[in-house]
Amino acid sequence: MPQDALHALIPRLATSVACDILRKHAPERLLMQGVRAMWPAPGLAAGPARTLRYLPQRCDVKTAPGGNARTKLLDSLNPGEMVVIDTMRGHGPVVGDLTGLRTLRAGAAGVVTDGPVRDMPEVAQTGLPIFAAGVMPAIPEAPELAWEHDAPIQCGGVLVLPGDWILADAEGVLVVPKSLLGALVAGADALMSEEAFSRALIDRGHNLADSFPIPARLRPAYEAWRKSGVLPDEATVRGA
Amino acid sequence: MPQDALHALIPRLATSVACDILRKHAPERLLMQGVRAMWPAPGLAAGPARTLRYLPQRCDVKTAPGGNARTKLLDSLNPGEMVVIDTMRGHGPVVGDLTGLRTLRAGAAGVVTDGPVRDMPEVAQTGLPIFAAGVMPAIPEAPELAWEHDAPIQCGGVLVLPGDWILADAEGVLVVPKSLLGALVAGADALMSEEAFSRALIDRGHNLADSFPIPARLRPAYEAWRKSGVLPDEATVRGA
Amino acid sequence: MPQDALHALIPRLATSVACDILRKHAPERLLMQGVRAMWPAPGLAAGPARTLRYLPQRCDVKTAPGGNARTKLLDSLNPGEMVVIDTMRGHGPVVGDLTGLRTLRAGAAGVVTDGPVRDMPEVAQTGLPIFAAGVMPAIPEAPELAWEHDAPIQCGGVLVLPGDWILADAEGVLVVPKSLLGALVAGADALMSEEAFSRALIDRGHNLADSFPIPARLRPAYEAWRKSGVLPDEATVRGA
Amino acid sequence: MPQDALHALIPRLATSVACDILRKHAPERLLMQGVRAMWPAPGLAAGPARTLRYLPQRCDVKTAPGGNARTKLLDSLNPGEMVVIDTMRGHGPVVGDLTGLRTLRAGAAGVVTDGPVRDMPEVAQTGLPIFAAGVMPAIPEAPELAWEHDAPIQCGGVLVLPGDWILADAEGVLVVPKSLLGALVAGADALMSEEAFSRALIDRGHNLADSFPIPARLRPAYEAWRKSGVLPDEATVRGA
Amino acid sequence: MPQDALHALIPRLATSVACDILRKHAPERLLMQGVRAMWPAPGLAAGPARTLRYLPQRCDVKTAPGGNARTKLLDSLNPGEMVVIDTMRGHGPVVGDLTGLRTLRAGAAGVVTDGPVRDMPEVAQTGLPIFAAGVMPAIPEAPELAWEHDAPIQCGGVLVLPGDWILADAEGVLVVPKSLLGALVAGADALMSEEAFSRALIDRGHNLADSFPIPARLRPAYEAWRKSGVLPDEATVRGA
Amino acid sequence: MPQDALHALIPRLATSVACDILRKHAPERLLMQGVRAMWPAPGLAAGPARTLRYLPQRCDVKTAPGGNARTKLLDSLNPGEMVVIDTMRGHGPVVGDLTGLRTLRAGAAGVVTDGPVRDMPEVAQTGLPIFAAGVMPAIPEAPELAWEHDAPIQCGGVLVLPGDWILADAEGVLVVPKSLLGALVAGADALMSEEAFSRALIDRGHNLADSFPIPARLRPAYEAWRKSGVLPDEATVRGA
Repeated sequence: MPQDALHALIPRLATSVACDILRKHAPERLLMQGVRAMWPAPGLAAGPARTLRYLPQRCDVKTAPGGNARTKLLDSLNPGEMVVIDTMRGHGPVVGDLTGLRTLRAGAAGVVTDGPVRDMPEVAQTGLPIFAAGVMPAIPEAPELAWEHDAPIQCGGVLVLPGDWILADAEGVLVVPKSLLGALVAGADALMSEEAFSRALIDRGHNLADSFPIPARLRPAYEAWRKSGVLPDEATVRGA
Repeated sequence: MPQDALHALIPRLATSVACDILRKHAPERLLMQGVRAMWPAPGLAAGPARTLRYLPQRCDVKTAPGGNARTKLLDSLNPGEMVVIDTMRGHGPVVGDLTGLRTLRAGAAGVVTDGPVRDMPEVAQTGLPIFAAGVMPAIPEAPELAWEHDAPIQCGGVLVLPGDWILADAEGVLVVPKSLLGALVAGADALMSEEAFSRALIDRGHNLADSFPIPARLRPAYEAWRKSGVLPDEATVRGA
Repeated sequence: MPQDALHALIPRLATSVACDILRKHAPERLLMQGVRAMWPAPGLAAGPARTLRYLPQRCDVKTAPGGNARTKLLDSLNPGEMVVIDTMRGHGPVVGDLTGLRTLRAGAAGVVTDGPVRDMPEVAQTGLPIFAAGVMPAIPEAPELAWEHDAPIQCGGVLVLPGDWILADAEGVLVVPKSLLGALVAGADALMSEEAFSRALIDRGHNLADSFPIPARLRPAYEAWRKSGVLPDEATVRGA
Repeated sequence: MPQDALHALIPRLATSVACDILRKHAPERLLMQGVRAMWPAPGLAAGPARTLRYLPQRCDVKTAPGGNARTKLLDSLNPGEMVVIDTMRGHGPVVGDLTGLRTLRAGAAGVVTDGPVRDMPEVAQTGLPIFAAGVMPAIPEAPELAWEHDAPIQCGGVLVLPGDWILADAEGVLVVPKSLLGALVAGADALMSEEAFSRALIDRGHNLADSFPIPARLRPAYEAWRKSGVLPDEATVRGA
Repeated sequence: MPQDALHALIPRLATSVACDILRKHAPERLLMQGVRAMWPAPGLAAGPARTLRYLPQRCDVKTAPGGNARTKLLDSLNPGEMVVIDTMRGHGPVVGDLTGLRTLRAGAAGVVTDGPVRDMPEVAQTGLPIFAAGVMPAIPEAPELAWEHDAPIQCGGVLVLPGDWILADAEGVLVVPKSLLGALVAGADALMSEEAFSRALIDRGHNLADSFPIPARLRPAYEAWRKSGVLPDEATVRGA
Repeated sequence: MPQDALHALIPRLATSVACDILRKHAPERLLMQGVRAMWPAPGLAAGPARTLRYLPQRCDVKTAPGGNARTKLLDSLNPGEMVVIDTMRGHGPVVGDLTGLRTLRAGAAGVVTDGPVRDMPEVAQTGLPIFAAGVMPAIPEAPELAWEHDAPIQCGGVLVLPGDWILADAEGVLVVPKSLLGALVAGADALMSEEAFSRALIDRGHNLADSFPIPARLRPAYEAWRKSGVLPDEATVRGA
């Protein structure tokens, strides 16, 4: 199952590495715009998406026809899930310290929204990873409407379907379609290994032209290093 | 029926007048943001909303699960309806000359979208009123997805439910919730009458303080004018 | 009096010409930002500034301590004056058809504001020049406060003191400090004359290098043209 | 006196809590836009506003008619006051390390401005809380003009009258009109108590629907907890 | 030669049609951002690019090392060429009435820049098509530097190489790389023909689903129409 | 040599101090816009500029005519140099952990770009100072083109010529033209000394009016302090 392999990868993964692996799939279009980490959480937050869609408040609509979809979503979370909230870049905060605490106690992996959040100092203390468009302390007298959950949404300009994976860290929030999970897992080892080889050469003082991306003439040396862990000597790298 | 009375009002109405009538209902929150007339159509375009919701394209999704919702909406239009399209401020044009011509032939009252449109010179020649976020000639190779129609949407930051009325002119696009149609019709006569009285006084050279809003001491003169069409004399207006 | 000479200049002047004349006085800092003509008025609107300062509305303040300063200003206008309104880029419209009509009947030369206005189709029909940040049909239930008039303000990022001259046309709105009025009048003739000479040469097909700005070697030819109206021959212009 | 009670509240207060207490007074309109903490000061900075109004520089105006209002304000500060500076979102920095040090030595509670500031590393070391629109190291050759002090201003789009209270922390800057100080103090205890009860339930693993906002059926349990400090048992909370 | 065929196409072409023809080549990346027609020129302006690159002014650099590149470019124009100016979204106007008149007299097809221009009322009277980021009447005391001409540039975010074709109209400015000119010419007839067929069907009242894009079952009818000019009957279109 | 003196100054310098010293040279125009420190590097990064110019990618151009200019620049760096990259505010990241590591191993003083960068957590760990427009983890499938190096560029709206000095810290990035290096070094001692005197007075509790800027009547006391290190007594400062 790609999901299990992905779980095992998370400690070594970053959104930038995932983008490199998915480079043939236009990852720049899978990256949310205007959404960033609200406090410097360590490492990568990742998990399958549970979606929530907001619509703007209006004088004649007090609540969504099906009731408050936010409460329903947060009270039905399973461990490891990522909450993803489409606010159409709305102006009122949709998560705060109490809803954040509920999310954490439910075992969720994090929260992503393209609207503002609040109570970030308190949320940061709990350790819940939050990715949002900014902070705003006031809930308007007529807040926006939590309309439906677990339906297709956009968030930060990217389509999110229930069950897609979300990868989020200090550099961005990436939506990985379910159909690409296998490609992500399959490509991770090769990419990280190639970058480690290049990094070792650069760290020893070599030029970019001799180390990254790995030149064709150094492919055999790279394969040898993969097996033996022994770097080629300096003359070999320089092609002298 | 408020709808019939509203139809009769349209030739004399403007979005600014409607906002004045609905002033107790926070009309500034019913006005779309970032949506404007694409060509200087004469007068007011108005009608009940038929809604269409787009979601962003993605490498693994070629079309919406239910098929192309735009074609379905445009092929089921009834005369007098306003097409309202939620693109989440998307980047690809959602209406052009051929879709515009189809909309016009179906008898629609106009098109409103918070994304870009194209072929505006051709559309302007047909006379179809279009309100949008701008123009863009290119349809991306992977265009955004027409996901569903006749469902609740946002457009320009305002909630639009199927059946709400849309009023659109050179100054803006106003969403009138179905429950406010009666208030709109009921308030129109009084407001337009009061403004006509004020306008006549100002036009004759009176101060704002003596003419707009109508001072309490001139209420009897206003009522007299409503019946007789005769303006009070200048000394009366000045309170001399 | 520079004012009288300036009045005589207006039919031939443009904001771009005034900026050229004042080029040693950093005219780019005297140009309002984000303020533009609301309808394509013919020519230049110009006159001494009558200032009005707005402050944001707030739940506990219903009106300015001294009463509605807008009514006071508009009811005390003199012919030829320019109304200049500091809204701190506010969100509610500060001028509409009735206040515009009052301004016109008072003989004002135009209205400038860094906030929105409304009823522009009606205002355009009256012919009153309006320069603003945009249009918005709705007056909020709690509108911003017309706080004081005839006091120093900013408008569009430029300091405006009562009595400064305002020059406004399709390309921008320029504040001319009272102390620069003399320089503006004094420089106009020379500049317009030099540009007419250059234009005549370019129109005849000459290179920029030979016509604009006037090369030193053609100064005598320019002076001759000023007296006689006769352009130098082509060989002279080309320096052949 | 509300002020004294407010002083006592400050260590437990946050702008988000104050917004919740004032929710019936449209707190989202009392929050400054585009103004944020320049360094992560601990807790809440709060105090009565001392106001300063800037106007844009201009080639013919070297200083405000009444002299440099900034120097006058900073040299007349009383302990506990908040300096609030209206720069109309100006471009030159209005506070740096020396003016910041003067503000601190005068005992002020903090500085708020909608323009940029400078020397933030040095200011952060002194501990003076600063809330601004950003940083900019250069003072322009012709800096903006400190025009008047202790007069009504806008800052970040909010009306500030001398004597209003300013509450500022990592999430925003809130203007509390003098007339609402009593409501703020009166509402604080009830709100913080209700949230503590909800937090305790959520922390124990309860659903949002059973804990926040407190459901009507748990009101007696809440009142009991206020007196005894004993939470209701789990079955009671679940309404089983 | 594609250039000759392209010249013949211009009267029937539009940027939107060209984008459709080039749809497999990501035309959205060939469209300039933030550049639009400065006055409503009729039809399409098109021609091979002559490029000009500006760099920002600085206190210590009075002119480009090679002299004023703008004068050199404008004095070496050939008929039919499009002037394309990279200002890096600069703030001072780079074309006005005299430089525009020179451009027109040289026979150029138009001017495109991602910075502001000036004197647009005068330029519009001459008929020279101008596409720019906006208008600004003042030339700063220290204007930006016309650094080099006929070199690779960006304009509006698109790479422009000398000799690329520029297509510009009311909807946008498109850069057509020299290597795509053949594809553009080759695809034009087929596309315009298919759209004319669809337009005729829609105009007769048919559904989008039956007319655009042309359904596979109507391909024979389309081919017949191309030869005979006779539209299929209504039943055939409806697939009845 | 000013460069050597400048090297000695770096530990005591800041961009704000440099701006003050260069105040007669319009330093606000030498400050990059939209470029900021990507991680809170200690102190000032400074050195002579090595420039790199990007141009936008396009479907028909796979690489710059002269090869990858980024690799050439990074493989020819000398210790102490600052890499300055003109991306025209481009959208793809131009520096990451491997290129950053190469830059660091080459001994560079830092990297400045007006586009995004990536891998900032990894780069921050190496200690390489990076100033950029933001972060973005994905390299687009068709990345922008590293066109040429060591040529004149703009970066953040400022002209940068090879050999100019770049000064960058938490408050901004300043370009110091080679011709102003002498003025910078010459002015540093006097300015820092005057500010230290003012700071000592303010720290002792004096008013701004008596301490900053140093009033003319305290000039002798300042000169005495420079020699003796003894501050004037309080009565002298107050002018009592």
